[in-house]
Amino acid sequence: MHKQTIKTSTNQYDVVVGKDIINHIDQYLPRKYKNILVITDAEVHSLYADKVVRHLSAVTKVHVSVVPAGESSKSINQYYQLLTDAINYQLDRKSLIIALGGGMIGDLAGFVASTYMRGIDFIQVPTTILAHDSSVGGKVAINHPEGKNLIGSFYPPQAVLYDIDTLHSLPEKEIRSGYAEVVKHGFISNEDYLSDILKIDLTKALQPQILSDHIQKGIAVKASIVEQDEKESNIRKFLNFGHTLGHAIESELGYGRITHGEAVAIGMLFAIRVSEDKLASNLPFNELFQWLSSNNYPLTLPPLSVDDLINRMKKDKKSENAQVQMVLLKEIGNPIAMNVDDGELTGLLEKFLRELGS
Amino acid sequence: MHKQTIKTSTNQYDVVVGKDIINHIDQYLPRKYKNILVITDAEVHSLYADKVVRHLSAVTKVHVSVVPAGESSKSINQYYQLLTDAINYQLDRKSLIIALGGGMIGDLAGFVASTYMRGIDFIQVPTTILAHDSSVGGKVAINHPEGKNLIGSFYPPQAVLYDIDTLHSLPEKEIRSGYAEVVKHGFISNEDYLSDILKIDLTKALQPQILSDHIQKGIAVKASIVEQDEKESNIRKFLNFGHTLGHAIESELGYGRITHGEAVAIGMLFAIRVSEDKLASNLPFNELFQWLSSNNYPLTLPPLSVDDLINRMKKDKKSENAQVQMVLLKEIGNPIAMNVDDGELTGLLEKFLRELGS
Repeated sequence: MHKQTIKTSTNQYDVVVGKDIINHIDQYLPRKYKNILVITDAEVHSLYADKVVRHLSAVTKVHVSVVPAGESSKSINQYYQLLTDAINYQLDRKSLIIALGGGMIGDLAGFVASTYMRGIDFIQVPTTILAHDSSVGGKVAINHPEGKNLIGSFYPPQAVLYDIDTLHSLPEKEIRSGYAEVVKHGFISNEDYLSDILKIDLTKALQPQILSDHIQKGIAVKASIVEQDEKESNIRKFLNFGHTLGHAIESELGYGRITHGEAVAIGMLFAIRVSEDKLASNLPFNELFQWLSSNNYPLTLPPLSVDDLINRMKKDKKSENAQVQMVLLKEIGNPIAMNVDDGELTGLLEKFLRELGS
Repeated sequence: MHKQTIKTSTNQYDVVVGKDIINHIDQYLPRKYKNILVITDAEVHSLYADKVVRHLSAVTKVHVSVVPAGESSKSINQYYQLLTDAINYQLDRKSLIIALGGGMIGDLAGFVASTYMRGIDFIQVPTTILAHDSSVGGKVAINHPEGKNLIGSFYPPQAVLYDIDTLHSLPEKEIRSGYAEVVKHGFISNEDYLSDILKIDLTKALQPQILSDHIQKGIAVKASIVEQDEKESNIRKFLNFGHTLGHAIESELGYGRITHGEAVAIGMLFAIRVSEDKLASNLPFNELFQWLSSNNYPLTLPPLSVDDLINRMKKDKKSENAQVQMVLLKEIGNPIAMNVDDGELTGLLEKFLRELGS
């Protein structure tokens, strides 16, 4: 078991990464709660909800709300339904919400917790690799048809309880999605960690020790950044490496058509190309492309309009005054946020999409 | 012009009370903004929106979103529509939302600001007496059919700009509603301020100097409490004097049937009766009743089920473990939060409603 403590402007919380946590979840709660709502999706529910409920119901009242799996549950309607559930289950300000699932559940349940009665405690219990990223740092949100995570809060959890035993049940697609964020943490932090990651073969069974190590390091990269800049005024933006185009692709295709990490993977390739062009950086485009390809990341896209993608990129929350801002790399471990003007972006994006054969 | 500075855990902001502020609103903004969304209701729009837009559009881009007047606009649908407006108007994280109107607009627009792109700046420009209370302290929210303000955030504004010239256009009903909160601030702070307030005759034209004085003192009471307890862990609850039953009456009758302050006025009478019963307090029930009555506050209610009211009171955010908590007074200026058990409450409420002749 490995524990990191994250300090935020308003609280501090532990991120625990280890085996067999869910079966002892009652012992990991930071305080006693009299009423708990577990929010989970249909897939995770069938795998872990019973365990969580069993180990908590000995000590407290527990309710479960299940939403459909997939990004489309991060909707205003689902959000409102969960608030209604919380009211019906008589949750009060001293109650707890547990987000049991991947990043979608953490974002959705966290946003419910952040706005139910102006904010109650919540705990992240991630069950995907991707959620090593999203569960740390206090960003919670739902989507709007016009863009991802446009509605949300900065609202840190009271704890992140990461049981890596849950990761063995992940489908390949989810492993790919999660590892894209691990790769991102490599790119923005240091070369050794990155080259270590790019050695892994995701098509084979993952070694728990390697997986756990990669995840802990990824969390450490993220924690160090969010502690310095919780509200994304400056360096937190670096965590969006690959996300400007990634989010645009996700929303342009319609959430769920491609996983978040798969979209970010393509976004990182593009961010490298832009970095080469604008900063004359020397970056391992081919090595990343090769690794993504051999691990079955989808690297060709259906035909997409460059103008539409750029409009999506402008709706990104990092965008200011309708200018697209991207995170680029001067070198590995040395990111920078830069505005890229429309004309330049159009040319680079057209060329990139041709390069991908889209 | 009178200025008070409020310090919160995350920022500090000025509350400016004075004449002719709207006509110089551009000079009162705490910083420059490139894109502003003014959120207002249909009634206030026809009176002041043009002025605000005129004085801002010389210096920046300004959009206006108008919602129907009345508490029913504090709905999930209206909230979502305003977020969609903000996206369509291309507001970014450096943009500003101005809440131009009464407490409903402040709550609604503030909640939009608190969750749009995880929070952007907003400024309160109150146009009612009631909003002297709601515009200070950073509580923002929308309603759920099951209860008032159940969905919201703690999110302080960047400034409160209170132009008392706007108060002269208020209908009597709104003056009554606002003065109930002024009276509340009297009850929970000190006897002299309270007896000063209870001398005013709301049925006659209000003297600007007296009005301004009452409002400034009310804001000072509120500011002192919220600075000590922003997130309502303890003494902030005292501001809910009269609100436990008040909120229950409002939602049981359906929002809009009775104003917030009118409901709180009845709630204060009840809180006094409960204080007399539980704490043997000696409080001016008759004096308050007399003042409310001579100022045309509605003091008889349509028949209401005591059980339904108590169920509503349990859904109040101050309630813990399904116990009703009320703010009572040991004496004027000396409030205390207490749980009241169901049986006792039923008896007291039945008696009180009979006393009112309901």
